[in-house]
Amino acid sequence: MERFKQLTDRIAAFASASTLFSWDMLTAAPKGSRATMAKLESFFGTETFMLCISDEMKQCLDELEPIIDGQDMVTKGLYKVCKKEYDNFHKIPIQEQEKYNQLVAKAYIAWEAAKKNNDFAAFADMLDEIIRYNIKFIGYRGYKEHPYNTLLDDYEPGMTVKQLDAFFGRVKETIVPLLKKITDGKKAVDTSFRKRHVSIEKQKRISRLLMDVLGYDLDRGMLAESEHPFTQSFGRNVVRITTHYHEDDFFSSIFSVLHETGHALYEQNTMEDIGETLLDTGTSMGIHESQSRFYENVIGRSYAFWEYIYKDLMEILGDDFKDVTVRHFYEAANEVKPSLIRIEADELTYSLHIMVRYEIEKQLVEGKYDIKDLPALWNEKIREYLGIIPDTDTAGVLQDVHWSGGSFGYFPSYSLGNAYAAQLLAYLGKEMDIEGLIREGKIGTITKWLRDHIHQYGRLKEPSELIRAIAGEELNVDYYVEYLNKKFTDVYGL
Amino acid sequence: MERFKQLTDRIAAFASASTLFSWDMLTAAPKGSRATMAKLESFFGTETFMLCISDEMKQCLDELEPIIDGQDMVTKGLYKVCKKEYDNFHKIPIQEQEKYNQLVAKAYIAWEAAKKNNDFAAFADMLDEIIRYNIKFIGYRGYKEHPYNTLLDDYEPGMTVKQLDAFFGRVKETIVPLLKKITDGKKAVDTSFRKRHVSIEKQKRISRLLMDVLGYDLDRGMLAESEHPFTQSFGRNVVRITTHYHEDDFFSSIFSVLHETGHALYEQNTMEDIGETLLDTGTSMGIHESQSRFYENVIGRSYAFWEYIYKDLMEILGDDFKDVTVRHFYEAANEVKPSLIRIEADELTYSLHIMVRYEIEKQLVEGKYDIKDLPALWNEKIREYLGIIPDTDTAGVLQDVHWSGGSFGYFPSYSLGNAYAAQLLAYLGKEMDIEGLIREGKIGTITKWLRDHIHQYGRLKEPSELIRAIAGEELNVDYYVEYLNKKFTDVYGL
Repeated sequence: MERFKQLTDRIAAFASASTLFSWDMLTAAPKGSRATMAKLESFFGTETFMLCISDEMKQCLDELEPIIDGQDMVTKGLYKVCKKEYDNFHKIPIQEQEKYNQLVAKAYIAWEAAKKNNDFAAFADMLDEIIRYNIKFIGYRGYKEHPYNTLLDDYEPGMTVKQLDAFFGRVKETIVPLLKKITDGKKAVDTSFRKRHVSIEKQKRISRLLMDVLGYDLDRGMLAESEHPFTQSFGRNVVRITTHYHEDDFFSSIFSVLHETGHALYEQNTMEDIGETLLDTGTSMGIHESQSRFYENVIGRSYAFWEYIYKDLMEILGDDFKDVTVRHFYEAANEVKPSLIRIEADELTYSLHIMVRYEIEKQLVEGKYDIKDLPALWNEKIREYLGIIPDTDTAGVLQDVHWSGGSFGYFPSYSLGNAYAAQLLAYLGKEMDIEGLIREGKIGTITKWLRDHIHQYGRLKEPSELIRAIAGEELNVDYYVEYLNKKFTDVYGL
Repeated sequence: MERFKQLTDRIAAFASASTLFSWDMLTAAPKGSRATMAKLESFFGTETFMLCISDEMKQCLDELEPIIDGQDMVTKGLYKVCKKEYDNFHKIPIQEQEKYNQLVAKAYIAWEAAKKNNDFAAFADMLDEIIRYNIKFIGYRGYKEHPYNTLLDDYEPGMTVKQLDAFFGRVKETIVPLLKKITDGKKAVDTSFRKRHVSIEKQKRISRLLMDVLGYDLDRGMLAESEHPFTQSFGRNVVRITTHYHEDDFFSSIFSVLHETGHALYEQNTMEDIGETLLDTGTSMGIHESQSRFYENVIGRSYAFWEYIYKDLMEILGDDFKDVTVRHFYEAANEVKPSLIRIEADELTYSLHIMVRYEIEKQLVEGKYDIKDLPALWNEKIREYLGIIPDTDTAGVLQDVHWSGGSFGYFPSYSLGNAYAAQLLAYLGKEMDIEGLIREGKIGTITKWLRDHIHQYGRLKEPSELIRAIAGEELNVDYYVEYLNKKFTDVYGL
């Protein structure tokens, strides 16, 4: 028992080191220091992984197995998490894993260049090799029903192709026509004020305002700047976020800060019993994304939220914005505009971007593809669901970093997050007047509910356990569809 | 060979992790995150230490021993460093080492409180215990001639009580009377302008000016802020410094930046062959301090230096300082004023503070002490050498953190650094017109010499090897005494 505890503490410490080197590289290190940081991040990442599949881990797990039921909650949780990790990855021959790691390290650089030069062909062979490795690894690991399920489970425990087919089926049949109704309609949202110059100093004050309103504990947190916004945590006491300021697009940082603060609140609100253990983080990518989306979209894009922050916000923005009303902010925050780029997509079209990736990934993992056809396949799906066509692969199949890193099965988490958020909203709404609370700035009351039902458990409970405990049912896409229908009917006066 | 290389890379990576957690804790982490950072710093510090004395290390060293002469320079260097570390510390029983580590962790907190409350008695027992542990550990480790030599060797390889007794003997017989001559003299230096308000924004620009003039490569470096200034490095590509800004004392940060930049140049200028290995750092505390003192004192407190930066500096300082001449700056930078606090001491009296500590430490390590007499012993020595008497133990025996951490034998490095710097200056002066170079801002020429003779070697050469190669003799205190005599005769017109 003691050895198992020490081993998991060791894994957590190694993972923290990897995280801190990454944090430093992305937020602070000047160019000449970055290669060293990247090397050390990777060193500790590998060390972490190797401990998870080590013989020592196997011994601990074997010895614990017959007595695990009598253990305390934290030990049981650690056992479950470590056992799953071990079972998942120890079957992959270590030499192949190492070759694969080297491949994805090179692939990132190749992808960056290919994206820059709009040259898919220069990346195609490497991508093909990555996909083939993934298919092979699924072979070692085994799967139930569909090979893609094994990958889905890495990011969203228990999620299956069957569930996602049904999920995206509903998305397709409801959002695609709703989008068409909006784009065919006459109403246009005025977003021109978003381009007005707002100094970085003012934007920093806005960030502070938003973090305070949402209740992010800066005594255990931090806001830094990086090229792309992200959240990093190594346990409840060190939870940090970043943003990126654009002087001619102040909305960009506003929604980044709201989004990342959502992630951060989840990480800060775990219960102390699991503090700084391997359980002290979100349970899945999907649930994590549900929290970021809840604060960014459900709260941050609501009319009530803009009502609440309007006065403080205008004090920072000053006279340049005196013609902008709460309604303007609200509508601009909810503009629907089909775009080619996922990370710029609005709340309505976001899942359509994910659907494209989901359908393609499923096909890739089945081995039913010819790599050179990928750009055309991508463009055709974008056309079908969003009604626009990428004019370059840079704005098409090459836009996301994920595949270069071998992250297949990750994308659906984004949509699941949105759907979980809508489902949570529905149940939360039965217990309190959410709109009223937001309007009065009482977001802490909402956070308390989320903390009690989700945050506190960290990785102690799986996604479906959390949702079932709240809703008495599994993930239900109906709430998501209803939520989108209601919001955009309002914004666009349909 | 491959195993030894991997092991030393691993030790270097663990040490880097410890360093980065410490850096983050001291420069960035908010209060609520610091305990986590401290825990992780200590975790990786212990891991590093344990690897250095591991059975695997012993095996590697044993296997290398018969063949080491035929190896390349880097392998030989690593072997030497690791062998010394192993031989030094593996004899201490691990349980005692652990108890000692716990003691010093507690002692830091006790010392902080005792210093704050001017309550030596509250810290005395713990300090006594730390000293007794050190005596015991010297017993395990063995010593030549004097037990204190074992501790000196940890910070300054090869340094002995015999050498230091002679060294401080000269310091005592020359500096004490010189100081008396100055304090008895009529000339007072006008330093009142140092208290004028200089905004932190302006001071940041001054920092940048100084770092540029000295040639600190900010593409592999960084300046941050912390309570106490320090330099941290994990290899030539990641070398960072800190300062602390006081709006009513802008000289404070100026000399901190010059000092830390001196350390940083040493770390940045190691040869690429040893980059990111265990050899990629300074060879000893004394040599390190000689570099920081060279840039801070020899360069930074010279008349020529203030001549060179005067115009740029005045542009930043603005009209508030238009009455301050180069001579004012120079004299104020070299004011002699006996003070109770070591870290506030001027260049002349600094070594007197160190002498007090050296004499006391020697006595402690010999076991010839009664802990409760320590404050009186301290005060008596300060009175004798500096002519002033501490009115509290806070400003006396409790002022330094070192003893609470068990760092005995460290203090002499500071004085050795000053002495090495003066000796280097003498030999460097035979090859180039140092004053002329400084006056023209050609500090890079000086740095190149220091790089060629010292920096590049990292830990490949021991202090005495470096000095002998330059001077054809060992450390010679005469240069230091002459240097001080010359400078203060000039400043005080003696």
